Amino acid sequence: MRLDWLNMPCAPPSREHEDLARRRQEQLTKPPGSLGRMEEAAITLAGLQRTPSPRAERVPVVVFAGDHGVVAQGVSAYPAAVTVEMLKNFASGGAAISVLARALSLPLSVVDAGSLLEGEISGVIRDKPCYGSRDFTVERALTTADLAFALACGQRAAGRAASHRADVLILGEMGIGNTTSAAAIACALTGRSPGDMVGLGTGVDAAGLRRKTSAIEKALVLHGLSTGDVQPLDVLETVGGLEIAALTGAIIASAQAGVPILVDGFIVSVAALAAVRLNSSCRSWMLFSHRSAERGHRLVLEALSANPILDLEMRLGEGSGAAIALPILRLACVLHNAMATFEEAAVSGRIGT
Amino acid sequence: MRLDWLNMPCAPPSREHEDLARRRQEQLTKPPGSLGRMEEAAITLAGLQRTPSPRAERVPVVVFAGDHGVVAQGVSAYPAAVTVEMLKNFASGGAAISVLARALSLPLSVVDAGSLLEGEISGVIRDKPCYGSRDFTVERALTTADLAFALACGQRAAGRAASHRADVLILGEMGIGNTTSAAAIACALTGRSPGDMVGLGTGVDAAGLRRKTSAIEKALVLHGLSTGDVQPLDVLETVGGLEIAALTGAIIASAQAGVPILVDGFIVSVAALAAVRLNSSCRSWMLFSHRSAERGHRLVLEALSANPILDLEMRLGEGSGAAIALPILRLACVLHNAMATFEEAAVSGRIGT
Repeated sequence: MRLDWLNMPCAPPSREHEDLARRRQEQLTKPPGSLGRMEEAAITLAGLQRTPSPRAERVPVVVFAGDHGVVAQGVSAYPAAVTVEMLKNFASGGAAISVLARALSLPLSVVDAGSLLEGEISGVIRDKPCYGSRDFTVERALTTADLAFALACGQRAAGRAASHRADVLILGEMGIGNTTSAAAIACALTGRSPGDMVGLGTGVDAAGLRRKTSAIEKALVLHGLSTGDVQPLDVLETVGGLEIAALTGAIIASAQAGVPILVDGFIVSVAALAAVRLNSSCRSWMLFSHRSAERGHRLVLEALSANPILDLEMRLGEGSGAAIALPILRLACVLHNAMATFEEAAVSGRIGT
Repeated sequence: MRLDWLNMPCAPPSREHEDLARRRQEQLTKPPGSLGRMEEAAITLAGLQRTPSPRAERVPVVVFAGDHGVVAQGVSAYPAAVTVEMLKNFASGGAAISVLARALSLPLSVVDAGSLLEGEISGVIRDKPCYGSRDFTVERALTTADLAFALACGQRAAGRAASHRADVLILGEMGIGNTTSAAAIACALTGRSPGDMVGLGTGVDAAGLRRKTSAIEKALVLHGLSTGDVQPLDVLETVGGLEIAALTGAIIASAQAGVPILVDGFIVSVAALAAVRLNSSCRSWMLFSHRSAERGHRLVLEALSANPILDLEMRLGEGSGAAIALPILRLACVLHNAMATFEEAAVSGRIGT
């Protein structure tokens, strides 16, 4: 399967529309800059959407699920069965992201990008090359073909979102064991040690945390990922996961299609970092929703030079942090578009200007 | 005018409903604690509202406006006329809080609690004892009677909100010069120096900042407020403002009526600190929306032991920060009420439990 598409450039933001938006912000009836990061968000979105009226109303959510062979090493507080059980919960509307999507009128797609499920679940898109990744402490997590399939799965999902004229895209994930895979990828891409990067995930105890850390240490050596000079595709193939690769593919494809991505927490940020390493032109298309309580997220955000909107000590995944930040982005747009200017409202300007 | 009402106790939160809410959070299909501060917010609101199903749907916004004699000292970047001009902008729908209230379906009331306006503006409630405060660098800002009137103005507004069965109340303010008054109150109540407390407000230059600081230094000496042993009512009378006193009254009355307050930025937080010093039982009824970019806000939040939801470098006032944080509170409630439990969704629990 060809991977050339990953390198296709993403358009740069329109500086002209950013400047127009910045000038409008200065004319609105408020002290200049007094809406702080709300102003920045509106200006950024205006530049990406190439419009004087940025918006974040049509926002599809795509959640990718996958299973991880490394759970055999006792790295998770929950059994692998939970991935598929949660797929059903997404589809039947009981999961956090399902509830958030309903409350915010976001179309939710759930993609089985590589869970252990053999059959089908109504309401879940099956788009997987195999049943979970392999245990990366003993072998490569994915074959080259499976990785290419998973990246293309993300591309397909982003294409569906873009074809429905999405203003912004939210991506989420579910996969027991995926903070272990994500931490391994993050260590390989940033050169940080597992001890700095590994966090509690769904809530492992101290012994579980030690198993998680040593599984990653072992894998980094086994796959030659401690050298500091790694290829992102090699990293995804050796210690990645199917839903994480799908996220990376979806981020690149969405940016290529001109749809900004509101990045969720630790896992999606790691996929975003892999995306930037594969195609740096996609970085401009990322907005960052929240700082997760998962330990390594801070380091990954640093590597992305990202300053998220929220810090609410969340660590659920599923795209929940991005969904919770979305109303802020929506209000930033509404304020930008609907506030009166000093001239329209006949309000006096600053003294002496 | 009697002020006994300020001392009437507010009910404590229901520990029973908090415990029920906490137990429900543990049963929802997510790792325990993984929704972080969203969980805390739902639990707090359940305790205050004495319900298993907390909500933040009916949320009136009341904006109080007032003028300040201290503007004669050159403490603001904008002329005093802007207070009344913005009253018109609130009423005609062009101000930030007007736009936010429309977008979030919040009933907005605008109260002229003491602007310089001689007439009336359609859509603005006139409830004032006089036309602005006096210059507190030369005399007491308010008379005892005017202060009592302004506190009762807040009580009346909170009563109107409570009678419409508000789930939560948002309070905002407008008043050229009011960061100077608020900083003076905060210095008197916390014992901090004007140099630590004074910020840029609407955006004064360095000379304006010096004038602002020295106006407050002068007033603290003139009114004997540097002793560390001050009476809150004396502070409000000597260096307060009519809209700030109205906020203090509204906060106490809302807490007494059992309606939680989502506290906005610097000015409202200073009014909240005065409210706590007058009647400590109202503290439990406060939720904190955002950390303002206004310098002194950090110190005031510390004095209130408050940890706000957002930090977006905003400093507009009007209740805008509280309105922008409201969707987070609403989603916290929706998640609490609508997510499936592990049992309902047939999702496996933690390994070994």
